[in-house]
Amino acid sequence: MSKVRVHNLAVSLDGFATGEGQSLQTPFGHAGGRLMQWFFGTRTFQSMNGEDGGSEGVDNAFAAAWGPGIGAEIMGRNKFGPQRGAWQDEEWKGWWGENPPFHTPVFVLTHHPRPTLEMAGGTTFHFVDASPAEALAMAREAAGGLDVRIGGGPSTVRQFLEADLVDHLHVVLVPILLGRGVRLWDGLESLEDRFTVEPVTTPSGVTHLTFTRR
Amino acid sequence: MSKVRVHNLAVSLDGFATGEGQSLQTPFGHAGGRLMQWFFGTRTFQSMNGEDGGSEGVDNAFAAAWGPGIGAEIMGRNKFGPQRGAWQDEEWKGWWGENPPFHTPVFVLTHHPRPTLEMAGGTTFHFVDASPAEALAMAREAAGGLDVRIGGGPSTVRQFLEADLVDHLHVVLVPILLGRGVRLWDGLESLEDRFTVEPVTTPSGVTHLTFTRR
Repeated sequence: MSKVRVHNLAVSLDGFATGEGQSLQTPFGHAGGRLMQWFFGTRTFQSMNGEDGGSEGVDNAFAAAWGPGIGAEIMGRNKFGPQRGAWQDEEWKGWWGENPPFHTPVFVLTHHPRPTLEMAGGTTFHFVDASPAEALAMAREAAGGLDVRIGGGPSTVRQFLEADLVDHLHVVLVPILLGRGVRLWDGLESLEDRFTVEPVTTPSGVTHLTFTRR
Repeated sequence: MSKVRVHNLAVSLDGFATGEGQSLQTPFGHAGGRLMQWFFGTRTFQSMNGEDGGSEGVDNAFAAAWGPGIGAEIMGRNKFGPQRGAWQDEEWKGWWGENPPFHTPVFVLTHHPRPTLEMAGGTTFHFVDASPAEALAMAREAAGGLDVRIGGGPSTVRQFLEADLVDHLHVVLVPILLGRGVRLWDGLESLEDRFTVEPVTTPSGVTHLTFTRR
C-alpha cells in the first residue's frame, strides 16, 4: 500500500512553519530563509542548484529522502504562489521556473480551479477544489502505486493530519521564535498517540522529529 | 555577578508548558505528568523521594543542575497553588508539604500579598506584588551573591524573558501535543538573537534546549 509522506517541514520553536506576509519576494514571509538554513547546507540542496559540495550527514540524509518513491504531490495554493482569491491571470506557474523539482503530477488545492499546466521534466500541475480525502484519491491514482507526498504549506499538512491521512511526518524543529505566521500544530491535540516519534539533533542546531504511524 | 536561571521547564511541541484546568488534584491541568516523565526517571528525582535508583545520563545531568548555586527562587502564584484571586484562607502552604525542596527564600508573585511563611528546611515563602525587576532585586538581595532561579510557571518565565532578565534558560521539549494550556513562547519573537542555543536529544525522547545569554 502506498504511503502518505511529509518531508522537511521546518517549524520554529513557537510552532510557525511559515512567517507572516507572504509575497512574490518573500515566499516564507518575514521568516525569510531562516527555517531552511539547515537544508541549504546539504549536498542534496546544492546539487539541485548544480553545485558540487554540501554536508552529507544527518541533515542531508533527511533532505535526500524527499524524492525517492514519490509518485505524486499534493500542495496548498499558498505553496504554489502568493496570490489569494480568484486568479487575476494564469501566467503564474509557481516559484520553480520552467522545470520544477517535482517531476510528477502535483495536485494544487484551490477553491479557484484553472487549466492543468504541463511543465518540463515531468511535472504537471492539476488545480483541484477537493477535500483532503478526495485529493488523496486523485493523487494515489496518478502515483501508480508509489507514495504520495503532502508538500505543504502548514495549513495543508495540518488538514491532512486532522483527517488522519498521514503515515510519515518529518518535522524539522528550528530553534528560533518567529512570533507570527502560520501555525502547524493547532487543533492536533494528542497527535502523538497515533505515531511513534523519534527525535535527533544535528550539528546545524536543528532537531529532526520523525513521526511514523503506529 | 549572580545569574538568573530557569531549569527543567518542559514544553510540549505546540508550546504549552502546562495544561488547561489546574486544580488541587491536577497541578499541571489536563497535561497530568506527561511533561515530566523524563524527570521522574532520573536519579535526582528518585532520590528526592528517598528512593535509590534512576537514570544517570543527560536527563539526570540537567535535572541535577537545578539546585547548586541557587540562593533564592521567584515563582508565580500559579506554581504555588491552584487558588485565584483573593486568598479564601491562608492555610495553603504550597504543594510541597512541610519541608519544601527549595531550602532558600522563595518570592511568590501575587497581587494578593499575605504574611511570610517560614517552612522547615530553610524555605521561606515571601508573597510580593512586584514587577519582575523589583522581584529580582529582592531575590538578589536575599540570595547573598548566589544565583536566582525563576521557578515558573510559564507566564512568570515569559515575563522575565520579555523583560530580558534571564541569563540561562533550560527548556525540555517533550514530543506531545497538549492542544491547550498556557503557552511559553508568545510575544518572544527573535528571542534567539540574545542567546546561544544548544539542543540535545536523550534516550527518553525529549530534546533539551539550553539558551545561554550572549
